[in-house]
Amino acid sequence: MMNQEQRAACRDRILAMLDAAGIATTAEEREQVEMAEFGLDEYEVTGLGIITYVNNDRYCAKELVMFPNQTCPEHRHPDVNGNRGKTETFRCRAGEVMLYVEGPETQPRRCAQPPAPDGAYTVFYEIVLKPGEQYTIDADTLHWFQAGPAGAVVSEFSSTSRDEADVFTDARIQRVPAG
Amino acid sequence: MMNQEQRAACRDRILAMLDAAGIATTAEEREQVEMAEFGLDEYEVTGLGIITYVNNDRYCAKELVMFPNQTCPEHRHPDVNGNRGKTETFRCRAGEVMLYVEGPETQPRRCAQPPAPDGAYTVFYEIVLKPGEQYTIDADTLHWFQAGPAGAVVSEFSSTSRDEADVFTDARIQRVPAG
Repeated sequence: MMNQEQRAACRDRILAMLDAAGIATTAEEREQVEMAEFGLDEYEVTGLGIITYVNNDRYCAKELVMFPNQTCPEHRHPDVNGNRGKTETFRCRAGEVMLYVEGPETQPRRCAQPPAPDGAYTVFYEIVLKPGEQYTIDADTLHWFQAGPAGAVVSEFSSTSRDEADVFTDARIQRVPAG
Repeated sequence: MMNQEQRAACRDRILAMLDAAGIATTAEEREQVEMAEFGLDEYEVTGLGIITYVNNDRYCAKELVMFPNQTCPEHRHPDVNGNRGKTETFRCRAGEVMLYVEGPETQPRRCAQPPAPDGAYTVFYEIVLKPGEQYTIDADTLHWFQAGPAGAVVSEFSSTSRDEADVFTDARIQRVPAG
């Protein structure tokens, strides 16, 4: 995992991208940026920067910050304790993001998945989101996404987030929401 | 109510404010900006510009655009047909917005309510939101808000919106979500 110095450098880069996108944040939010490494040791390849604005028992809103060509790996949001899994809307604010969901494989695709064990990526129907464009993903639906060559800032509007319940296709991955 | 020419001018002004705030929108969203007049004929004083990004059975996200010193009048979101009323989070993106909720009256206040019949405004506890700051309002809780002298762009994250069920304190007001 990233050491303290690497984490500080990543955080600075994430904050600079938010600033460049004109997205205002508080000092507390800037300090608490989450950098999801997914239990892999390749944040710049497979990782996600997250500021959670609000997550209550009804809805959630986050800002996602992705480095150039960075990937959030394939996963779904299952039902949890009788609560319907998370439905989420991704809205591109800056840069460009390619979203992959179930459906006929797009050929050619804009993005290759990152190096990973066989079977770690299984859905390849491509949706390209440019600034102002958005797409909604139903609960319990496999998806992954990758930023374009300039990175991306993406707003996520959703029902309640229960990140610890996410199911990743890549068995190596552990999602432990922290720092 | 505003005539077609006035509406077009207001829309242009709203879109210019979104652009100035660096908030990207699609051509379709730009065409469908909602200008809520609340059944009053004073949009620049009492009114609200709205782009609804998503409103499904679980959550809703909107961008609110307010002219300088424009007010969204006092209201609450009651339970509807056994569904809990709307909980909402206002996040200031640009400009400044003063939010008034139940609680001890703030003195002195930054904003005066617009001219209205006695009893149209009843809550005066002030919360000031600058860019990056946010505040969450529980269901069925009275609130109103007014933009600062430079106007405001405010993201609203919430549970499902049922605008037609909103209860306004000012009995003159009719909320008909349209155009």
